[in-house]
Amino acid sequence: MTVGRAGDPVDRARTVGEVGERRLITELTRAALADDSVGPLAGHDIVIGSGDDAAVIDTAGPTVISTDTSVQGRHFRFDWSDARTVGARAVIQSAADIAAMGGRTTGIVVSIGCPPDTTVGTVLDLNAGIVETAHRIGGRVLGGDLVAADQVVLGVTAVGALDGAVPIVVGGARPGDVLAVTGHALGASAAGLALLVDADTRGDTGHLDEFPTLLAAYRLPSPDLTQGPVAARAGAHAMTDISDGLIEELITMATAAGLALDVQTDRIPTDAAVHDAAATLGMDPQEWKLTGGEDHELLAAFPPGVLPPGWTRIGDVGLGSAVRVDGRVVRGLHGWQSFGD
Amino acid sequence: MTVGRAGDPVDRARTVGEVGERRLITELTRAALADDSVGPLAGHDIVIGSGDDAAVIDTAGPTVISTDTSVQGRHFRFDWSDARTVGARAVIQSAADIAAMGGRTTGIVVSIGCPPDTTVGTVLDLNAGIVETAHRIGGRVLGGDLVAADQVVLGVTAVGALDGAVPIVVGGARPGDVLAVTGHALGASAAGLALLVDADTRGDTGHLDEFPTLLAAYRLPSPDLTQGPVAARAGAHAMTDISDGLIEELITMATAAGLALDVQTDRIPTDAAVHDAAATLGMDPQEWKLTGGEDHELLAAFPPGVLPPGWTRIGDVGLGSAVRVDGRVVRGLHGWQSFGD
Repeated sequence: MTVGRAGDPVDRARTVGEVGERRLITELTRAALADDSVGPLAGHDIVIGSGDDAAVIDTAGPTVISTDTSVQGRHFRFDWSDARTVGARAVIQSAADIAAMGGRTTGIVVSIGCPPDTTVGTVLDLNAGIVETAHRIGGRVLGGDLVAADQVVLGVTAVGALDGAVPIVVGGARPGDVLAVTGHALGASAAGLALLVDADTRGDTGHLDEFPTLLAAYRLPSPDLTQGPVAARAGAHAMTDISDGLIEELITMATAAGLALDVQTDRIPTDAAVHDAAATLGMDPQEWKLTGGEDHELLAAFPPGVLPPGWTRIGDVGLGSAVRVDGRVVRGLHGWQSFGD
Repeated sequence: MTVGRAGDPVDRARTVGEVGERRLITELTRAALADDSVGPLAGHDIVIGSGDDAAVIDTAGPTVISTDTSVQGRHFRFDWSDARTVGARAVIQSAADIAAMGGRTTGIVVSIGCPPDTTVGTVLDLNAGIVETAHRIGGRVLGGDLVAADQVVLGVTAVGALDGAVPIVVGGARPGDVLAVTGHALGASAAGLALLVDADTRGDTGHLDEFPTLLAAYRLPSPDLTQGPVAARAGAHAMTDISDGLIEELITMATAAGLALDVQTDRIPTDAAVHDAAATLGMDPQEWKLTGGEDHELLAAFPPGVLPPGWTRIGDVGLGSAVRVDGRVVRGLHGWQSFGD
């Protein structure tokens, strides 16, 4: 990482190319350290934070680590989401992977790539969303990198702690397990995206005002990531986050375990807005629930009788090797998922 | 991270868009696990490796973490470096930051962004360079992400262990300390870059064959990163890696400590090729030695009398607040360093 150096306050209207990498990194570091929303965990695990070649974090036990990258025009558009929300979402994406192992996110490192003519304000807003969200989920921004690129590319690597729990792999399901998910509206993010695509295609934003919760779910999914450690403590056998759609995750889980997973669609948590939006757009709400990505809710297999509050049973694990939805065997989507913008 | 699933071997000539993200991630994971060059450390610290939502690594003591991103056309060009070397270099960049804290790199997570029409072969070669280099320096590839982007963007986050050493910050120098660097030819990477730029500008690659070591130094710096932990054990007070040029790093170190750093240019390690290339191009070899980035050698401040083998004394730390080269106060470069391609 590049080490920033202090200076005068920086003008939000200037460009990244004008202000320079080191100068702006100093601002980003300052913002990461200055956020006063930080709760009682502040500095607890951090030996050396932002502002050196590398950070040092000291959490007892194994370290969970995952990385995710969001690309402008592929994973987000600044006319659909403001920079703050784009930054926040990138943190949730990586933190959901930590939660999916049963971990809590303790820190993140961030890479921001952007065109030189990007305004300083845009980068500061991206960073503000990143810092706020990291703090909100109990983590800290440990450092980052700022580079020139042809489009905005946001990489977040999250590290986390297991606090004594056994990490929960995706392939650990056992016959007789109960399949369950967190959240109250799978497919909400896909519904929000469909509304934005529809408005874009028709050149008419008329429907957008009717579905604020779905747009919010697309712009910034809000899974309860504390359910990851809860599931681990409850003895979950397998877990993953729903980033590529429920069916894709079920197929991965079934393939990894060599088992059959049966899901009943009427058990999948949904809400009226998802169904209303589907009716408005003439689309199938089941498709959003089953294949809609980016909700980042958790999918897990629990032994019978231990399902914690916050989880909804959607099916069961049995012998065989298939994913069945309402009794019918399904196959995965193909193609490059991240192209679905 | 996305969880890959197994399948048939993949055709190197096909494109990433044709083959799909999950399929290719499976191949990348397979390559990371299959490399038989892995030495006795294999699997030692890894609880869960590539292939799940997140990896779990269990190294005793604090975790050092740093991230760096390389962008096609900014930090590398495929007509100047092959994909394998580009991947290898990205690992060295991040691992040098871990070494600069006194740590040894135990694992990396990788983000590869690329245009959908990138060949599978290019991505496999990038990955091969990443995996080989991670293994060579004693680390493992813990996981990664593959996304569509307009240009190749390579993000490497490295984690490392301190093995009981105190982390060495950039600002810890004390009056009376000895300034020292690793390596035998600072500026070699900048010289190699200058040769490539010259050949590009003149449309004549005639000089390139004369300076293979400089081209190699540009394409893949080879700092001895074990000197980071060596310096920590020897009691170094401050350390950083030379990624933005010696003077920039000296200014950062002086500013952070509020001290004066004095350097003598005739002590800076160099070699004949750097001077010969400068003469050939009509350029100043001192500028490469003082401001050439990307050597990734280490710069440290040691208490007197403890300088380990492998380090060259280039100057001293005193009271005041300045960087002086041969007695003259110098100022840093400005602008966005990563634009210097």
